[in-house]
Amino acid sequence: MKWTKKDILDIDSLSREEITLILDTASGLKEISERSIKKVPTLRGKTIVLFFVEPSTRTRVSFDIAAKRLSADSISIAASTSSLTKGETLIDTARNIEAMRPDILVMRHSAAGAPHLLAKHLSTCIVNAGDGMHAHPTQALLDLMSVREIKKDLSGLKVAIVGDIAHSRVARSNIAGFSRMGASVTISGPPTMMPAGIDTFGASVAKNVDDAIADADVIMMLRIQKERQQNFLMPSEREYASQYGLNRTRLKKIRPDALIMHPGPINRGVEIAPEAADGPNSIILEQVTNGVAVRMSVFYLLAGGVRNADSD
Amino acid sequence: MKWTKKDILDIDSLSREEITLILDTASGLKEISERSIKKVPTLRGKTIVLFFVEPSTRTRVSFDIAAKRLSADSISIAASTSSLTKGETLIDTARNIEAMRPDILVMRHSAAGAPHLLAKHLSTCIVNAGDGMHAHPTQALLDLMSVREIKKDLSGLKVAIVGDIAHSRVARSNIAGFSRMGASVTISGPPTMMPAGIDTFGASVAKNVDDAIADADVIMMLRIQKERQQNFLMPSEREYASQYGLNRTRLKKIRPDALIMHPGPINRGVEIAPEAADGPNSIILEQVTNGVAVRMSVFYLLAGGVRNADSD
Amino acid sequence: MKWTKKDILDIDSLSREEITLILDTASGLKEISERSIKKVPTLRGKTIVLFFVEPSTRTRVSFDIAAKRLSADSISIAASTSSLTKGETLIDTARNIEAMRPDILVMRHSAAGAPHLLAKHLSTCIVNAGDGMHAHPTQALLDLMSVREIKKDLSGLKVAIVGDIAHSRVARSNIAGFSRMGASVTISGPPTMMPAGIDTFGASVAKNVDDAIADADVIMMLRIQKERQQNFLMPSEREYASQYGLNRTRLKKIRPDALIMHPGPINRGVEIAPEAADGPNSIILEQVTNGVAVRMSVFYLLAGGVRNADSD
Repeated sequence: MKWTKKDILDIDSLSREEITLILDTASGLKEISERSIKKVPTLRGKTIVLFFVEPSTRTRVSFDIAAKRLSADSISIAASTSSLTKGETLIDTARNIEAMRPDILVMRHSAAGAPHLLAKHLSTCIVNAGDGMHAHPTQALLDLMSVREIKKDLSGLKVAIVGDIAHSRVARSNIAGFSRMGASVTISGPPTMMPAGIDTFGASVAKNVDDAIADADVIMMLRIQKERQQNFLMPSEREYASQYGLNRTRLKKIRPDALIMHPGPINRGVEIAPEAADGPNSIILEQVTNGVAVRMSVFYLLAGGVRNADSD
Repeated sequence: MKWTKKDILDIDSLSREEITLILDTASGLKEISERSIKKVPTLRGKTIVLFFVEPSTRTRVSFDIAAKRLSADSISIAASTSSLTKGETLIDTARNIEAMRPDILVMRHSAAGAPHLLAKHLSTCIVNAGDGMHAHPTQALLDLMSVREIKKDLSGLKVAIVGDIAHSRVARSNIAGFSRMGASVTISGPPTMMPAGIDTFGASVAKNVDDAIADADVIMMLRIQKERQQNFLMPSEREYASQYGLNRTRLKKIRPDALIMHPGPINRGVEIAPEAADGPNSIILEQVTNGVAVRMSVFYLLAGGVRNADSD
Repeated sequence: MKWTKKDILDIDSLSREEITLILDTASGLKEISERSIKKVPTLRGKTIVLFFVEPSTRTRVSFDIAAKRLSADSISIAASTSSLTKGETLIDTARNIEAMRPDILVMRHSAAGAPHLLAKHLSTCIVNAGDGMHAHPTQALLDLMSVREIKKDLSGLKVAIVGDIAHSRVARSNIAGFSRMGASVTISGPPTMMPAGIDTFGASVAKNVDDAIADADVIMMLRIQKERQQNFLMPSEREYASQYGLNRTRLKKIRPDALIMHPGPINRGVEIAPEAADGPNSIILEQVTNGVAVRMSVFYLLAGGVRNADSD
C-alpha cells in the first residue's frame, strides 16, 4: 500500500489499511531510538513546524524528538509568543508560516476543527496534535501500536475506556481507532462526564466501571482534569478513586493478561492506583516510547515516503 | 564586490552596492527553500544566537529557519527568561553570550540603538532584528527584494508608505532603502502618526492617502498598533479603514501594476481590505518567503562569505 | 583513567582523578569553539534533554551550545510549560522523558537533591545543573578549569570565596572542588549570610573580607541576590559594596597575580567594582568560555566516551 493523504487530522478519516501502514512503519522505525546513534538521515532538509496554540510539553517534545531522529529541522512556535495575540486570523498566521516553506505543520489548538481549517487552506501537510475536545490522532495511533505489539491482532479485542469521556479527545480518537481496527469499545465514567449523543460514538456504555473492566483485554484510564472538580462535575478525588478509579480492589479483578493504559500525566491515587500504574500489566511508559515511533512514522509517510518520492 | 562589514545595523550604513550584493545573494539562495531537501552545508559549525529582548515570533522564526537551511546552529534567548531581569547590564549580558563564541548575534530590542551599542563593544557580528522605533534593516531588505523581483529595477519607482509612520521602524528602514536604491518615497497617514522633523526623512508627504497611492508603483500599508487607539492617536478602526486604509474604493484607483505590501501581521478590514491583501496585486506572502532568503543572505555574507574565507 | 560514573550530581562524589579527567577532556575540547567550523560529530545521534524546572538562561544556553558543538540533539523543557504543573510527580515526569530515550538528562531544580532522586530511579545519565542551595557541579568544574589554565597546579592555592555563602550552591560546590584538588578555601561575608554548621564545610572563615583576600591566589565574589535585601539579610547595596564588595580600595590590596572570579551575572558596583570585573586580574568571561568546554567534556564522558564505547 502507498500513502496518499496530505494530512493526518483525525482517526475517522483514516482507513484500516492506512492505520496499519502507519503502525507497520512505526514498528520499523522504533528500533532507531534504541540504537547508540539514534538518528537516520531520512528527512534531512525537511522543515517541521510545531505550532502549539495550546500548551503541551510532552506531546511537543515527542514530536520534536521524532523530527530530530529523522534529521528534520523542527521549529517550535508557542501560542503565547505568537502573532495570534496581535489580532491576526489563524489562517493568516498559518499562511505566513507556510510562506516560509515548512514541509509539515504540526498543530495543537484549543478549538475543535482548527487543523481541518488549515488543511483546507494550505498545501502544507497538517498533523493534528490535539484540537479541543475533538481529536488527538497520534495519541490513538500510539495506543493502537502499544496494544498491537503485545496482542498482535487488534481485531476482536475488548477495550474499556474509563473516566471523563465527554471532554476527552483521547477517548474520541481511541474509540474511533479501536473500532476501525475491529475491536469493541466499552466506556464508563461519572454520569456528568459521559457524552451527549453517546449512541453515535460507536462504543457501548457499561453500567459501572466494574462491568466495563471485568472482561477487558485493554483498560484505558483517562486523566481527571482537576478543574472539573471545581465545576462540580466530579466528586472529591478520594470518592473518584473509589467509584471510578483503577484502585487496588479493582486491580485484583481484572484479567491477568489485561493491559493497563493511560495517556498521561497520571494522577497517582486518583484515577489510577500506583499498584496499577507501576505493575506488570501497565504499558503506560511503553505508550510514551511508541509515541516517538508513531510520530516518526507520520513524518516519514507525509514528508519522506512514497508520496513525496514520486512527486518531487 | 566583496562583503567587508562586520554588522548589519541599519539601512543608512549600507551602500547601494552592499544592498545589491545582499539582494543578489538572497536571490541565489532563495531556491534552496523550494527544493525537496531544503538545506545546504554552507554554515555548518557556525553558531547563531537569536537574542530577542522584545518578543516577536515571525521574525525570530524567519531567522531560525534561515539559519537551519544553511546548517548553522541557532540558539534562541528570549527576554523574559534572560539574566536581564537580574539587573545585569545589556553589555555584560552580550559579552557573556560572546564568551560562548557565537558567530552572529541577532538582536531585537525595544530600545533604539541597542544593537549599535553591542556592535561597538563586541567583535561578534551583530544583526539588528528591530530596535525600538529606529530600524529593521532585514525587513527593508526583504521588501526591496520582493519589489525588485517583479519590477527588476528599483531606480525611478514611486513608493507610497501609508499609516503610522512616526512609530514605525519598518517605515524608517524602507524610506532609507528605497531612497538609496533610487526610488522616490511618499508617505501618508493620520497627522498624529506623522513624524516630527519629517523633512529629514528623505520622503515627500502627500496631502492624503489618495494622493499618495494614485500613481504609486508600490503601496506599502503599515500595521496599525491597536494600543495607539487607546492613546487617542488614531480614530476608530472603522474610521481608520475609511480615511487611511487600502479599502475597496481605493483599491479600484490604484495602478493596475501596483504592488501591495504589508510587513504583517495584517489587521484585515482596518489598514487593509481582504480584497487588497488577497488580490492579484498583493505580494504580502512573497515578502515572508523572501524574508527567509534575505536572512540566509545576511548570514552567509557575515559568517560564511568572502569576508570570513579570507580571515579564517 | 577511564570514566565509569553514570551521573554528575555533585563535586563530593567525584574523585580527584575524575575531576582531573573532566578538566583534561575539557581542555582538549575547548579549541573546537575557537575554530571556524565549531562542531565535531562525536555525539551525533545522541539526545540530550535540558530539563530546567528553575529558570536559567545562561546555564541552559551553555549546555545547549555544548551539545550542539558535539552534534548532539538537545531539547529544552522549561518548568512553566511542563506537566509538573498538572500534578504529576517529578519521578513520573522524568520516567516519561526517559521513555523517549534521551542519553543525558540535564536538570536544574529548586529543590536540593532532586537530581539525585532521578539518578536513583532512572538509567539515563543525569547531570545536575544546579539543585536548590545544594550543588552546581559544572559551575565548580569550569571554575577549577579556569584557575588551572593559569595557575597550572591547583594544589596549594589559596582561594577566597566572598559573599552570600549560606545560600550559594556555587560556593558549596567550589569549596568541595578546590578542597578536593588540594587548595585551601577561606570564606567571608555578612554574618547573616554565613552558613550554619560552617565547620563542616571544609573551609576556614576569615575575620573579614580584607583578611580573606589579602593573600589569596583566587578571589571569587558571589552574586548578591537583591531579594535578600528585602528580607533584611543584607545591608543596602552601597553599604554592601563598602563592607563586603571587591571595591577599588580592596582591589589595590590584592596580590598582583590574584585571579578575580564571579559566577555571573554581576551586579556592577555592588559585590564587584567595574575596575575589578573588567581589570587584568579578572577571568570572569574566561569562566563563561570554559563553561561550554566543561559541559562538552561532561557530555562526552557520559555519552560518548569510553564508558559507552564499551557497553554499546
